[in-house]
Amino acid sequence: MAEADLFLRACRREPVPRTPVWMMRQAGRYLPEYRAVKEKAGDFVTLCKTPELAAEVTLQPVDRLGVDAAILFSDILVPAEPMGIGMTFNPGPRLSPPVRTADDVDRLRVYEPEAEVPYVYDAIRLVRRALAGRVPLIGFAAAPFTLAAYLVEGGGSQGFETWRALLQGDPDLAHRLLDKVTAVTERYLDAQVRAGAQAIQLFDSWAGLCGRADWRSFSLPYVQRVVARLRPHGVPLLYFGLNAAHLYEDIRETGVDVVGVDWRTELHEASRRLGPGFAVQGNLDPAVLLTTPERVAARVREVLASGASTPGHVFNLGHGVLPGTPVENAQALVDAVRAASVPA
Amino acid sequence: MAEADLFLRACRREPVPRTPVWMMRQAGRYLPEYRAVKEKAGDFVTLCKTPELAAEVTLQPVDRLGVDAAILFSDILVPAEPMGIGMTFNPGPRLSPPVRTADDVDRLRVYEPEAEVPYVYDAIRLVRRALAGRVPLIGFAAAPFTLAAYLVEGGGSQGFETWRALLQGDPDLAHRLLDKVTAVTERYLDAQVRAGAQAIQLFDSWAGLCGRADWRSFSLPYVQRVVARLRPHGVPLLYFGLNAAHLYEDIRETGVDVVGVDWRTELHEASRRLGPGFAVQGNLDPAVLLTTPERVAARVREVLASGASTPGHVFNLGHGVLPGTPVENAQALVDAVRAASVPA
Repeated sequence: MAEADLFLRACRREPVPRTPVWMMRQAGRYLPEYRAVKEKAGDFVTLCKTPELAAEVTLQPVDRLGVDAAILFSDILVPAEPMGIGMTFNPGPRLSPPVRTADDVDRLRVYEPEAEVPYVYDAIRLVRRALAGRVPLIGFAAAPFTLAAYLVEGGGSQGFETWRALLQGDPDLAHRLLDKVTAVTERYLDAQVRAGAQAIQLFDSWAGLCGRADWRSFSLPYVQRVVARLRPHGVPLLYFGLNAAHLYEDIRETGVDVVGVDWRTELHEASRRLGPGFAVQGNLDPAVLLTTPERVAARVREVLASGASTPGHVFNLGHGVLPGTPVENAQALVDAVRAASVPA
Repeated sequence: MAEADLFLRACRREPVPRTPVWMMRQAGRYLPEYRAVKEKAGDFVTLCKTPELAAEVTLQPVDRLGVDAAILFSDILVPAEPMGIGMTFNPGPRLSPPVRTADDVDRLRVYEPEAEVPYVYDAIRLVRRALAGRVPLIGFAAAPFTLAAYLVEGGGSQGFETWRALLQGDPDLAHRLLDKVTAVTERYLDAQVRAGAQAIQLFDSWAGLCGRADWRSFSLPYVQRVVARLRPHGVPLLYFGLNAAHLYEDIRETGVDVVGVDWRTELHEASRRLGPGFAVQGNLDPAVLLTTPERVAARVREVLASGASTPGHVFNLGHGVLPGTPVENAQALVDAVRAASVPA
């Protein structure tokens, strides 16, 4: 079997000769060659919007580290701009104007993504051509709950209190916003698959803001809609909820193929609570990559031991690579997965 | 039975005619009379260190809202300064120098708190005198894990990656630091009880950074040491871990009387997972206080219905009062608990 098939087969819980590995935010600031391209671009938004440069940084960790999947270099907030929201990064995101009233929601545009964010799809096509089948390319978007959280809050925030207050104080308006965000997300991702993305990951970075009842009300049905839209394409669908240790019994209702698990939950526990039918992805604490290559290798072996009891395991971090990560530690992670993992 | 006994009786899971209520960060920026005193003090640290002013703001929510317990106005970082750490707030805390090496840990001082932070104990005595038995006074400190997290990180942080990297890369050093922080915390709290605090709450605000195994290694044994030190005083002990939905089976081993629950977990679920012998405290999302008095009252009734199945329930928020909270909403919370709660 070709190495190129490892990731997609593990997502489908098919037998693989070794556990595939990629890392969330594997293309990023910790790589000197990324910083060089970003400098050339001038700023983060320009980098996202320039297909040649976005494709170049997408490929860097494949070439440098030997990961088993590429993930499109972009940002979960990219689909917001054509909705009518100004976006700047400095370095955290600012969205303006924030979406807080019924009028604000009504003003949001549901648009044709290939016309309005063509650079996303151009980058996908460039990456696919350059990869030439070496490893598959993952596309992605925020889960609707998380994109809506940013739109309401107007950017990042420790506790997203404005969004939580809206959920508590005006759930009908929250649902109207989520409906519109979901319509955008469905189109945005459907076009990614048509452009060549071979798997799709939904990042529900703020899933952990909610208790179970609120997550079931405000996130689950919208994830299900995106899943239903993408399912006919036949590509593996991945869902990653950060800080979602209390949600695994509910996440199984998403209908995705692979569930990302952060470092707060052991893989075998997440797998048990999800029940049959799911591959798991994770879950090394990215802070481990701030230690030493030896420590990284030791922890990789522990995670592999924990994950090997499941029918499908994609090795990943429990969250994105941290900017201060030494490249040799990222390399040690990939090497340790390749060296240690056994056929499953 | 006197109203004054409600809180302490509920902590001990004794029958009470109605559910007692207080709010984390009930003395704070949302109250205009707090802002007036803070202006008089000039800055936050001076307010913490001036017993007459700290006592005055401690009493404000008792007088204004009619809560069933006072909690000393102070900050969880106060015990750090005499250890040899400079502390400023602007508005988030900065601790300098951060504690990162064995030498840094060795330099930390374990001190006699009544000599070095006398203002804490003077404030407790002033509050007890002014309360004259109306409601009990809660003292507090950070749990050792959380105070150590701040010392290593050098302040607040979204993900406390430096601390997490130390836990992963040099667990022995982390344990040496935790041992010293625990020695300080034991003395600091023991003196609070001797000065008049009638219950003690440990804030483990960063408990949720860890998976179960790491929490059991780096937080639990140090909480147990503090509990063992305070237990002979006979005052109720409370533990609040934010974002600890995955930890309730483990938190029961702390040996505290009351477990604080944030809004991510239903009270009856936390109670079931803790097992017999624990009162629960919580868990209204503080973002609800950003909505309307009617909505606050409705959600209070839902929480009371969820908590009433437990043998002991102290009504509280799932985290501190947010600065933008309208006072009328905080009042609506207290009034709704008083009006709606039934004998348990």
